[in-house]
Amino acid sequence: MKYPNKIQKSDTRVINHANRGMTLEHDLNLTNVYYSDNNIAVITKKATPIKVLKIKNTCKGKTIINEACFETPSTTDYNGIYKGRYIDFEAKETKNKKAFPITNINEHQLKHIEKVLEHGAIAFIIVRWTTLNQTFLLDGKTLINFIRENERKSIPYEKFQELGHLIKDGYIPRLNYLLVVETVYFSDLNKKDD
Amino acid sequence: MKYPNKIQKSDTRVINHANRGMTLEHDLNLTNVYYSDNNIAVITKKATPIKVLKIKNTCKGKTIINEACFETPSTTDYNGIYKGRYIDFEAKETKNKKAFPITNINEHQLKHIEKVLEHGAIAFIIVRWTTLNQTFLLDGKTLINFIRENERKSIPYEKFQELGHLIKDGYIPRLNYLLVVETVYFSDLNKKDD
Repeated sequence: MKYPNKIQKSDTRVINHANRGMTLEHDLNLTNVYYSDNNIAVITKKATPIKVLKIKNTCKGKTIINEACFETPSTTDYNGIYKGRYIDFEAKETKNKKAFPITNINEHQLKHIEKVLEHGAIAFIIVRWTTLNQTFLLDGKTLINFIRENERKSIPYEKFQELGHLIKDGYIPRLNYLLVVETVYFSDLNKKDD
Repeated sequence: MKYPNKIQKSDTRVINHANRGMTLEHDLNLTNVYYSDNNIAVITKKATPIKVLKIKNTCKGKTIINEACFETPSTTDYNGIYKGRYIDFEAKETKNKKAFPITNINEHQLKHIEKVLEHGAIAFIIVRWTTLNQTFLLDGKTLINFIRENERKSIPYEKFQELGHLIKDGYIPRLNYLLVVETVYFSDLNKKDD
């Protein structure tokens, strides 16, 4: 079937952009509301940085933004506090089945993860493999080390199985990643890192 | 002199809105960059939450926001990590000379401060009295207690002198609030709270 080229391209782009990362983000937001409501942790998603270019004041004193554009985030998307510890992470989805492209996380975000780790944070990435329907937590230090020690531009799925930690889907909460955080960062074996 | 009423009103509104809190925000941002560059702490300002209403994809694949509006923030403006501790605060300016109106901080933000305190955060507000040219740090718990124990809708300047901690202006960094954080939360006398 032949579609007019321009329309097809533009449509695909809009759909991809709108859905990018929405499901994982939605699950994480619901989970964070559960954590907050049940007094487990306070972890929030930072607002997407937007550069306001033009504003208009309406007659009722409300401000409407007429023109703005998305900015590249310089830090990770989520941070907060759990059991007195500072938590910081970035969440990404990938449709790939074999490898997670490192370019999905920008340079500033990697630098941010490195920096907060130096100050004693619990930092990691959460990656959802949408095609495989699996979500992994990968420790920030493990991620940084992998990038430094390898010349690769992506992290193979097998490395997530080997070095990462599977986060099981649930109903309430939707994605109980703090259960994994508990095992990885708070278990007796790991307490020496605290 | 007589100006056409409408123009004058509109202009004043725009100027007030644009300058609100800018100086303190500017000083804090410069200070946070200094902390990050010198490996002292990683504390960042969250982006202002903006609700995107209409977007347009340009021919070059860039997304332009056509219509958006500001949302009421549900958390504080600043958070991060210092010496392994989670730091959380809200910064406000006031032109008043006698009292700081509590309404300057919204209900959600107060609730957020209460919540993070429960999880072991160091939380506070930074208030700049622009007319008096003084900036104070007021501990979150002290703030919450004052609001609970008093029926007042504002905190008198004298209370800031009594319960708060003056942050001295400087050149580099511009507003070394971590020096006060160090005294209030990390000194030997206060270590029992850790």
